Amino acid sequence: MAERFDEDSLRAVGVRIDAEHPEGIIFDPHQPQLRVTDLAAVRGDGIFETMLVKDGHVRKFPAHLERLQRSAKITGIGIPPAESWQAAVARGLDEFRTRSGLPEELSIRLTASRGVDGEPASEDSSFAGTYWVLLTPVPESVQASRGAAISVTLLDRGYDAAAAERAPWLLLGAKTLSYAVNMAALRWAKEHGHDDVIFTSSDGQVLEGPISTVLLGSRDGNGQVHLHTPSPEVGILPGTTQATIYRAAEAAGWTTSAGPVTVAELKQAQFLWLTGSVKLVSPIAQVDELEFTTDPEITHKLLEFLSQEG
Amino acid sequence: MAERFDEDSLRAVGVRIDAEHPEGIIFDPHQPQLRVTDLAAVRGDGIFETMLVKDGHVRKFPAHLERLQRSAKITGIGIPPAESWQAAVARGLDEFRTRSGLPEELSIRLTASRGVDGEPASEDSSFAGTYWVLLTPVPESVQASRGAAISVTLLDRGYDAAAAERAPWLLLGAKTLSYAVNMAALRWAKEHGHDDVIFTSSDGQVLEGPISTVLLGSRDGNGQVHLHTPSPEVGILPGTTQATIYRAAEAAGWTTSAGPVTVAELKQAQFLWLTGSVKLVSPIAQVDELEFTTDPEITHKLLEFLSQEG
Repeated sequence: MAERFDEDSLRAVGVRIDAEHPEGIIFDPHQPQLRVTDLAAVRGDGIFETMLVKDGHVRKFPAHLERLQRSAKITGIGIPPAESWQAAVARGLDEFRTRSGLPEELSIRLTASRGVDGEPASEDSSFAGTYWVLLTPVPESVQASRGAAISVTLLDRGYDAAAAERAPWLLLGAKTLSYAVNMAALRWAKEHGHDDVIFTSSDGQVLEGPISTVLLGSRDGNGQVHLHTPSPEVGILPGTTQATIYRAAEAAGWTTSAGPVTVAELKQAQFLWLTGSVKLVSPIAQVDELEFTTDPEITHKLLEFLSQEG
Repeated sequence: MAERFDEDSLRAVGVRIDAEHPEGIIFDPHQPQLRVTDLAAVRGDGIFETMLVKDGHVRKFPAHLERLQRSAKITGIGIPPAESWQAAVARGLDEFRTRSGLPEELSIRLTASRGVDGEPASEDSSFAGTYWVLLTPVPESVQASRGAAISVTLLDRGYDAAAAERAPWLLLGAKTLSYAVNMAALRWAKEHGHDDVIFTSSDGQVLEGPISTVLLGSRDGNGQVHLHTPSPEVGILPGTTQATIYRAAEAAGWTTSAGPVTVAELKQAQFLWLTGSVKLVSPIAQVDELEFTTDPEITHKLLEFLSQEG
């Protein structure tokens, strides 16, 4: 049974998943929901995904569930089956529909924590942790900022590009809740007059943004567009937005590739973007002191590729 | 006013600090206390300290508050003044005294999160986040394990020793809630037959344990003991337990030093320990395949140094 909401709470809807509610149960995210002994809050020991809902359709839901499962495997956190997440998301969307109408856009965050320290919530490892879905309307400012040119700063992530393969305990391929460094890097960028960050490895490889994927592009004399992105082997997340763009771009006759990108190569790129599930596509007009041309036509096309999918 | 506890809950006591309760208010840690939008749970965006209470006395309280302030400064998280934390801890201890009697030993965790995303709890930056103290009896198994020899594995932390100085956004000197990697390293160690971990830098420097400080020791022909520890410049936390040991050791006529330690030097050490606030002192009998002699007399003395302080 749904708890009562005050009107204000319709800004966000929460859905908890547990062994007794494998299809989710609504909660008010403005009320306390987690114990302070939950490992999400104790040690950032959990994993997550963020997805976009546009006009009631969840974009790239299978890709996000797949990446959540990948994070779960790397971290050894048991998670509910895909059907549970799907049912919980559907329940959350219904709650919006019933109570205030569905906003044009929602951001949905799936979170799985390892659970309460020393007290598994269930003997079934798929429900031993703490699981919730949070649905939040996408602010108009975020919607309006899509496709707008940004300035980024290159920041050293501290790791070399081989660390992921050498040291699996660094969890480099998992999207964990331990994001304090990602947030600190974004704060650093803003304090230094930039909008976002591109992380580099200590040995000069381009990695990813704190919450985005890096995309390089070029257009030859015949107007043929080629896209390139750093490959996940360097210890970064496989980008679900970049993957969707690639599928549509290839269908449109563009060429694509993934592989190592050095900082020098980044600086010589013709066009650059950051891509992400909610902000979608941000053309980069500046990397530290270096200015870049943006190509509104390609950017528009990239946004179109993403809207085709949903 | 204190909330009601069921008897079971006396296993732990929580004290929340906020602008309206600068001296803390008791809560039941077995009940939900945090919103899912609290940045502690969203992104491991907070800081903490763990302290030991023995016979009602909080050990090294000033050193822990100092280190919490250091973490707060590095991360830009506002925290309540020292008096608030002191009052909240006193309130938590009183709660134990009143309700079930004070256990011989308690572990106390101070946690400060950046607060609820986009909704500061107070205009006063010292109370803008979410703050709580958690008091938990120390399990007998932990008490019994003190001074017992352990086996550790060396694991690469991925960073080189200069990363901390070069890249402040990595927050390497702060004790943040983003501890997923520390926990993953400990799980890795246990899966491979070890009790604990010593992190090394990618360029071969000895760093620290995931939740402890590394201590090297030697005894010369005259019985003179010398202690050595890696210095914080390599991006590790200053050890409060190690600092207490050093003060007492120097007073006892031992010599001490801090500085870089290579993996080769670690392997040639005469004696090794991990030190921490709750487990105190663990002599190391094995580093991966390499066996070490332990010196029960020195270990006993180290434990004695720590008990002098409280």
